[in-house]
Formats: sequence, structure tokens, C-alpha cells
Amino acid sequence: MSAEIKVVVDAMGGDNAPEAPVHGAVDALNEADNINVILVGRTDDIKKELSKYTYDEKRIEIVHADDVIGFDEPPVMAIRKKKNSSIVVGMNLVKHGEADAFVSAGSTGAILVGGQFIVGRIKGVERAPLAPLIPTEKGASLLIDCGANVDARSSHLVQFAKMGSIYMKNVVGVENPKVAIVNIGAEEEKGNMLVKETYPLLKECTDINFVGSIEARDIPKGDADVIVCEAFVGNVILKLYEGLASTLLHKVKEGLMSTLRSKIGALLIKPALKKTMKQFDVSDQGGAPLLGLNGLVVKAHGSSSNLEIKQAIKQCTQFSEEKINEKIKENLTVD
Amino acid sequence: MSAEIKVVVDAMGGDNAPEAPVHGAVDALNEADNINVILVGRTDDIKKELSKYTYDEKRIEIVHADDVIGFDEPPVMAIRKKKNSSIVVGMNLVKHGEADAFVSAGSTGAILVGGQFIVGRIKGVERAPLAPLIPTEKGASLLIDCGANVDARSSHLVQFAKMGSIYMKNVVGVENPKVAIVNIGAEEEKGNMLVKETYPLLKECTDINFVGSIEARDIPKGDADVIVCEAFVGNVILKLYEGLASTLLHKVKEGLMSTLRSKIGALLIKPALKKTMKQFDVSDQGGAPLLGLNGLVVKAHGSSSNLEIKQAIKQCTQFSEEKINEKIKENLTVD
Repeated sequence: MSAEIKVVVDAMGGDNAPEAPVHGAVDALNEADNINVILVGRTDDIKKELSKYTYDEKRIEIVHADDVIGFDEPPVMAIRKKKNSSIVVGMNLVKHGEADAFVSAGSTGAILVGGQFIVGRIKGVERAPLAPLIPTEKGASLLIDCGANVDARSSHLVQFAKMGSIYMKNVVGVENPKVAIVNIGAEEEKGNMLVKETYPLLKECTDINFVGSIEARDIPKGDADVIVCEAFVGNVILKLYEGLASTLLHKVKEGLMSTLRSKIGALLIKPALKKTMKQFDVSDQGGAPLLGLNGLVVKAHGSSSNLEIKQAIKQCTQFSEEKINEKIKENLTVD
Repeated sequence: MSAEIKVVVDAMGGDNAPEAPVHGAVDALNEADNINVILVGRTDDIKKELSKYTYDEKRIEIVHADDVIGFDEPPVMAIRKKKNSSIVVGMNLVKHGEADAFVSAGSTGAILVGGQFIVGRIKGVERAPLAPLIPTEKGASLLIDCGANVDARSSHLVQFAKMGSIYMKNVVGVENPKVAIVNIGAEEEKGNMLVKETYPLLKECTDINFVGSIEARDIPKGDADVIVCEAFVGNVILKLYEGLASTLLHKVKEGLMSTLRSKIGALLIKPALKKTMKQFDVSDQGGAPLLGLNGLVVKAHGSSSNLEIKQAIKQCTQFSEEKINEKIKENLTVD
């Protein structure tokens, strides 16, 4: 029997709000009986959506929030000014111990800023990285950091490596996860100043399985489970993954429509091709945790459907059951 | 009628040397009558290869070089010690004005180091960037810098933007090329310290068509012609392009072989699919110029075939005819 968990879901966050978050929350409840949900946002909108479904009313609570933070608002200002936005209200519930986790498909910037300033970092954690899973030939790797922590220091990257290892081992279930640092060559002496400083520090860590540098070309092969980099580079990798996969798919489709012969072939391969491309869809890997905070914050893709929101909510139970934050505390304060 | 050009070809460089460079050189001669070639490397090996072909003997010269710099040798040391390697001997020919350009599929590191220290930078050019063309939906964009110039400063990036614009306009033929800086968001206030410093400087340049930030997701769409970034980020983009395209192709093939239905379809779409994937092959975009040097240095992909070497050689004539270096000198010394 697993422990109960209370997850705050941002009912106003994402391209498909409030439909997707409300629908996803109901589905999560119906699939896992240890989950309770607080839907935060405009009460009327939430009630209207909820009226479409059957669910255990005792397990869903609504907390009203009038405002919504848009995708294009400067995050720091938005978090400071919009005290009554779904993100700020929701994160405050986690901060005050009224919930264990916060899930949102809203503005990444606002979620990152709110995570750091409202929920707050675990004592000893210097920075809270955003760590999405990216698809690889072998399954998925954790790309840490893809947040907004630009101009990182080597001590940050070492903490990312440790937190990433704990997450991959305990939440994703990879035994002894391989940790690599993104570099422009495989040799230890290669790299920019940050990588050269970080490499020997990672080598010294006895609590992670550091395998050395990884070149970007080898990331899609799945050669490492935890891919450490500073946020600017992580962001480039994550977004190029999305962009290139979508462009290639588009090109393949265009190619398939170019001759009668290929058009007939296209009809036959459609199901197989669709399955393959789905495996390589970054947005399909569930939510990305913001690690190292006093509570769990999960950023779901902006275009999340109810399925993805449901996944992100269910992911929180694993995080909570495996006591990830306790493990992070133990590991990061030993040094 | 176009002016004569003399190109030094590294006969020992690349996975397919000496076959590919010698064969490529002969083909270039036979296709363009204003090209003369110096093949540099082990005379016996070169003669043996040359004996397979028919060509105008007056237009090919052999310059002997005993040594070869391997892909895994530390570049600075290799350039310093191996005075009689094909790269060092070849670059010295350009330095001393005995040839206009040097083409090699050998060690990128050694070519970058040799370019800076042997051929030397144009006065006023702070750093010589490696600028490959990468495939996009609309054709190709110049990714500048992908070299080994890590930890760049904003003044370097401004020069990259200018040199890249000159190259795209005059060699590739893009009128008023759009220049963008790689960033983690579209807004001016986003980015790391380097990008925030560089952005306003690029905005002030009246001689380039600066269109602002580009997120990595939009690079494959071809939204900009000249993509400016520091070398670490450029290297990640270039190599992820290679890796992801190859992994996706592999996955698509795997998917196509998964059912009988898709196997039949695969036979029908093969030619169309092959053509599409070829368009997105980074190694198929010809050689990457090392810009801003006193002479032209072109790095061809390590796995180049004779076709790619031939392309890289022919590319040099355009560079020379359009007087790219004169244009770089004029533009970079005005400030």
C-alpha cells in the first residue's frame, strides 16, 4: 500500500487549459487511489469542466485564483505582481505544506522563478535545475539543466549530476545510472572553462557513476542516463531535439508525397512510422521535474493534453514514495 | 572568364585518404579549367592513386610530406612537432603565397590550430571561426562558430556575424542574409551574459541584417541564414544535428521492418526517403571554411568521399573570385 499524496494542478496552465489539466486530474484520481488533487484557478471555469466527469468528490478540492500568468510575461515581474495567479497560489500551497507537489503546463519562466522564490530550495542546494527526459535509442535520458540558470558554476553542475542520478535511479528505475558531461570532444582536456573545471570534480565523486564526456552526436544513442550541462546548452539541446524531429518528419512526409509509388508506400508504412516518431517526441516524455526544491514542482509541456497531465501527476507519487527530496538532502549535505 | 586558383589538397587527410582526396582533386580539375592543384602527402601513395586517372599533368603538382597528423593527436602539440606533416606542409604553401587555399578532411583540431598559427589571421580579425553549412527546410544556414574557440567574447561574435554575412552573400548567393544569435528565448532580455552583451552590439551594426534571437527549435526551419553562437554551443548544434538525424533514420528503418505491411511499403518509399535524408545529411553540405585567415582553409568532413572533396575544392574558386578576404578586411577594419 502506498502513501497518500496531494498534488496541486494548475488548472489555468498550458495551451489546452482548463480542459486538459482538469481532465488529466480526474483521470489520475481514477487510476491511482492514493492521489488527491487541488485544482487551482478560476472556480467557475474549473467547475464547468469538472461537471463533465464522474469522480470521487472528496478527493478533488478547488482553490480559487483569479489571475493567469501568460507565456510571454517577464517571469520575475509576473511572480512578484500576480499574487493571485494560479502559479503563485498553487506554489504557496506547497510552500505551506498543504500539498506535496505542483504540476503546471504554464509559463516555464514563471514556474522556474516561482519554484526558487516561493517553494524555495532545499538547504545546501545551490540551484534548482529543470530536468526533462529526452528520448534516445535506448529509452530516455535525463537532461539536466534546461532551466533558466544561465552562467552556472562547476559546483552547480556537480550538484546537478548527483540530483540527476538520484532521480534516474529512484524514479525512472535505472540501476547505477551513467552520468556524462556534455563536451565538444571525448578527452578530458577538451572543453570550455566550465567543463574543464567540472570534469575533475565529477571524477572525484564516489556517489555517482561518472563515465566522462559525451559529445552531442552521441546523446540520441542513449550512451548516458544523466546528461549534465549548464542551462543554456541544455536548452539548445532540448529545443533542437524538438525542432529537428519535427522538421525531419515534415521532410519525410513531403518526400513520401513526391511520387505515386511513394504515396502508395506511405499508406502502408503510416502506422509503423507514426509509432517511431511518437517515441522520439520530446513532449511525450511526461513532465520535467524542477529538482532540489522544498516540495516537488513538475513542468509539463505547454501543449500537454490530458494524457500528459495525468502522467505528470502520477509521476509525483513515485517521487514522493521514493523520498527523493530526503535522498537529495542526505547526498548534497555530506560534502 | 574566371581567374586561376591554386588549391592545396591534403592527400593524407580523412577516413578515405589517399583515395578520396586524390580522386576528388582529379575530378575538380576535369570539371573546372581554372583550378590547379597541389597534392601534399606521401609521394609514392599519391602517384599510385594518380595512376588510376587521366588528367592534365601540368595542373597537378605533388609536394612531399612524410608525416600524417592523426584524428586523436592533441592538435597544438601535433602542429608544433610534426613539421613534415601534410597539414603543416600544405598550410605553409598557403602562408608563403604559393597557393590560394588549403582543403583537408583531416583532424579538425589540427586544421583549426594550423589555420590560426601557420596561415595566420587577417589583421583586425580577433578569432577565425569554423563555419559549416547546416541543412534546413529552406536550404542551408551558416553556423558560425563551430571551431575550438571556446569562451568567446562579444566582440568575437560580432565579427562572426559580419564574416558570416559576407560569406553567405558572396559565396552562397543569399541576398541580404538574415543574421540571428542563438538564444534560449526570443526576447532581447533573455540569455546568458555573453548573449546579453552581444545582442545590443549586433543591433547597432548597420552592415548586417540582424533579425534578433533564434531558439534552437527554429534553426532547422531555416529562419536565419547566418546563425551566430560561440563555438561550444555551435559544436553541440552541429553534432546533435548529425546524431539526431542518424538516430531518427535508424529508428524509421527499424519501424519500417516491424510488420509485413510496412516492409512492403518500405520498398516503395525507399528512393523518396533516401533523397529526403540525403538533404538533411550534414556531411553533404561541402567543406566548412575557416574564415578570417590570410588565405582560405576548408575543412571537409572526416568521412568525405571524392565527391565531397571535389565540392570543397570547387567551393574555393567562388571564395577567391568573390574576393571574400578583401571584403572581410574592408568590413572588419572600418569599426
